[in-house]
Amino acid sequence: MAVQPVLIDGQWRAAAASGTFRAENPATGEAHEQQYPISQWADVDAALNAAVDAAEKLRGTAPAAIAHFLTRFAERIEARAEELSKVANSESGLAVAPRLQNVELPRTCTQLRQAAAAVLEGSWSLPTIDTKNGIRSYLAGIGPVAVFGPNNFPFAFNSAAGGDFAAAIVAGCPVIAKANTSHPRTTQLLAEEAFAALTEAKLPPATVQLIYRTSHQDGSRFVADPRVGACAYTGSRHAGLTLKAAADAAGKPIYLELSSVNPVLILPGALTERFQKVVDEFVDSSLMGAGQFCTNPSVVMLKEGDSAEKFIQAVKEKFDARPVAPLLSTNVCKSLGASVQTLQKAGAKLVTGGSQAQGPGYRFTHTLLRVEGEVFLAHAEALQTEAFGNAALIVTVRDPSQWAAILNKLEGNLTGCVYSDTAGSDDALYDALAPILRTRVGRLLNDKMPTGVALSPGMNHGGPYPSTGHPGFTAVGIPASVRRFGMLQSFDAVRPHRLPALLANKNPTGKTWRLIDGNWTQSDVPA
Amino acid sequence: MAVQPVLIDGQWRAAAASGTFRAENPATGEAHEQQYPISQWADVDAALNAAVDAAEKLRGTAPAAIAHFLTRFAERIEARAEELSKVANSESGLAVAPRLQNVELPRTCTQLRQAAAAVLEGSWSLPTIDTKNGIRSYLAGIGPVAVFGPNNFPFAFNSAAGGDFAAAIVAGCPVIAKANTSHPRTTQLLAEEAFAALTEAKLPPATVQLIYRTSHQDGSRFVADPRVGACAYTGSRHAGLTLKAAADAAGKPIYLELSSVNPVLILPGALTERFQKVVDEFVDSSLMGAGQFCTNPSVVMLKEGDSAEKFIQAVKEKFDARPVAPLLSTNVCKSLGASVQTLQKAGAKLVTGGSQAQGPGYRFTHTLLRVEGEVFLAHAEALQTEAFGNAALIVTVRDPSQWAAILNKLEGNLTGCVYSDTAGSDDALYDALAPILRTRVGRLLNDKMPTGVALSPGMNHGGPYPSTGHPGFTAVGIPASVRRFGMLQSFDAVRPHRLPALLANKNPTGKTWRLIDGNWTQSDVPA
Repeated sequence: MAVQPVLIDGQWRAAAASGTFRAENPATGEAHEQQYPISQWADVDAALNAAVDAAEKLRGTAPAAIAHFLTRFAERIEARAEELSKVANSESGLAVAPRLQNVELPRTCTQLRQAAAAVLEGSWSLPTIDTKNGIRSYLAGIGPVAVFGPNNFPFAFNSAAGGDFAAAIVAGCPVIAKANTSHPRTTQLLAEEAFAALTEAKLPPATVQLIYRTSHQDGSRFVADPRVGACAYTGSRHAGLTLKAAADAAGKPIYLELSSVNPVLILPGALTERFQKVVDEFVDSSLMGAGQFCTNPSVVMLKEGDSAEKFIQAVKEKFDARPVAPLLSTNVCKSLGASVQTLQKAGAKLVTGGSQAQGPGYRFTHTLLRVEGEVFLAHAEALQTEAFGNAALIVTVRDPSQWAAILNKLEGNLTGCVYSDTAGSDDALYDALAPILRTRVGRLLNDKMPTGVALSPGMNHGGPYPSTGHPGFTAVGIPASVRRFGMLQSFDAVRPHRLPALLANKNPTGKTWRLIDGNWTQSDVPA
Repeated sequence: MAVQPVLIDGQWRAAAASGTFRAENPATGEAHEQQYPISQWADVDAALNAAVDAAEKLRGTAPAAIAHFLTRFAERIEARAEELSKVANSESGLAVAPRLQNVELPRTCTQLRQAAAAVLEGSWSLPTIDTKNGIRSYLAGIGPVAVFGPNNFPFAFNSAAGGDFAAAIVAGCPVIAKANTSHPRTTQLLAEEAFAALTEAKLPPATVQLIYRTSHQDGSRFVADPRVGACAYTGSRHAGLTLKAAADAAGKPIYLELSSVNPVLILPGALTERFQKVVDEFVDSSLMGAGQFCTNPSVVMLKEGDSAEKFIQAVKEKFDARPVAPLLSTNVCKSLGASVQTLQKAGAKLVTGGSQAQGPGYRFTHTLLRVEGEVFLAHAEALQTEAFGNAALIVTVRDPSQWAAILNKLEGNLTGCVYSDTAGSDDALYDALAPILRTRVGRLLNDKMPTGVALSPGMNHGGPYPSTGHPGFTAVGIPASVRRFGMLQSFDAVRPHRLPALLANKNPTGKTWRLIDGNWTQSDVPA
């Protein structure tokens, strides 16, 4: 079978390839028949040139056309939902239903439609008008965006259709998608629909481009290239930090989502008040998608004692009883095993699981570990090793002061949860612990597991390093996620007819929120 | 005379010093009598510990107290204006009047008062409420901020009183000020007033701390320390990039203002229409403060021909006639000489100046260079060397396409100006060139020189790399400058009484702008 084409400058054409690769079906371990190219620098170079040209043209493109593209893209994904879900299942092992077809695909389309609405409204760009000084500013597209998508969401975080993609397009930035190598075919199909939709909307052909893989060296060169505006990367910490070093040295913004253990604090009263509910919520959240979520609750803290023992026993029973789903790839399976070993070496004891599981493909037994607070404090770094997959570590804590000390040792995380009772017996402990947790996580939850990442303007899917590279930005949630791809442009005494529409006296949409002389308004600048 | 004390954790105390230094009066070349300590790591370590504690306390401090501090600080600076201006003059060579006492000091106080108003209003933090999903977010203080101030604004960008300082305090972040070593005494006096003001306002004593100098190694360790929230640095590119590398490797945000040549495009019609006005504006802007502004117009582009020759001649005459002011330090003087040589080696021809000037202290003759567009294109990188001080390079451009090519070679800059005529003869050229310039500068001006940086919400004192480290942020202009020091905090299903005041249903001030379900409003969340 011929090597699959890349999409560069509006052409599906043969890559300048240094080799090829094939993805596997992780549920069976069998390789797929399609061969995908490993691009040489010439492909990246051509894509960058085309993207610079597209970025310039997009600046002069009506928001309505960009919104039309996003809407048509969503409709086209829906029209091909069955095939897409089947292909994504064959590359990820994730269930067609409900996960792929009924949850993730609709989420992806909702996100694209929210993006279309954001383009039309324009408020994401924080248009700011100072009439007294004659100075106006807003955020404008930062230039071509390189998107490196993760393995665990073949649709919703796909580099050619997911959150980073949608946010970049809203900002007016062309996207060069680097497919995740575990699901090239899914990405190819999405890029086909994206390209068909942008052709319908008459956007510049290089608004969306696709390559599948490069050498590591060319990946670093890519994110540091002067033609790149910014990069968005979701994936392993090691690869992410390599790209970050290259981008940082070139002064290029790079937004990373790396790793997170998502601490869950279950205060004593909550366990007394609603033991079974908490057990069920934790087990569901922990094993959902075989635990392969960035926001998987991987570290749970409990006060030591009978309730904690009962909790651990109840979770163990449920872990042992649930069927084991395939992991996303052989690498995920190997890496999970290695992480579990690291945790054990650092003092965690295996409660259950801890080994590769039977069955076709790549599977790992549901794994529960436990460790005492004192040991956690002594080996805090190693015991925060992310075990990406269906594994969790329970920390039994001696007393409130030890609990505070443990929280003070936490690295940056995407989320942190606190379960407390409703009668008030946990309130003092909450008040002591939540402020410490608050500064170490992007999103704080009460009485709720972290795996649901709502498409909300209030969402933060981000957090302090090393969960991301900068605690001020989120990868999910419009409008904030869009602002990552904006450069601040100020216009000082620029003649009125030369101002961008969003900064003109007349509000171009009648709906755009603008900060005029200190007040947010949808009105025109007063005459 | 005893070595001057550092301010750490509320105490003016002896530094753990590895050595001392003295500043000079650059107008005379004489060293001042005060000796200042070069701190060892122990001082930085103690300051960081105290700052972490102060950051926690500031989270629970009423906005009114922080605003009171900022206001009292401004009042105290005004009460000591005469002494401060005299001292700053003796350390910078900048004129007491009008520059220091009548312009820069009032600007500094206005900035502090704007900061006080921003604290009281709270809108800078973009409070966002999604009632449907029960998710709310805002920007909260990122933690202790290390501020490294520049040499050229002893008040307005002072690490203990200037723009970065004020922005960090608004965000609720304690500041550890690293004095610029060219004006330690000015910084010490400002820190005295800051400390007195924060004592009056009953803020945590470590809200403001001061050290004067460290080893380079400790400086890098400082910005990368886990206890630091972020760093703000204004100064030379070389030192800034060293700090950036250290901060980047540790995943710590660092905001840099490095270098900028601030291109000015004078289109042919503007020169015909108002020749003398343009000459005067350029010369005033170019030589203001001996050219030692980040936004100094250092590269001017003109269409080659008689008008350009006339312009160059007129500027030369004015440059030759104006008295030469002292530069900020011997280093500035040496570095200016070296940069002028670099420009000459790359093909620029000296029109006038180019050597150290007579008179006491450190002075350089007003320097004008010229180069043809073709040569600029051939040596674009070297010819964009920043010559910080009273020097400018005129580029004579052959035709519009060469002009566009030159703009396409521009590095990132803080500002870019275009002068055009009012009759419309320049309009086509403006339309061809401005879009290229726009993506390469933070602030675009029409018919105006860039040296006035208004304290405006529409200001961008920032721009693409290497003028700064990230094109999304500004160092001047509240509210945007404050957001550099915010971490995004999302609250998901957090119980109402545990929400921060700015995210509660009731608008805590009645004046804070909040994005509630997609609409900016000062109202409460509807019941």
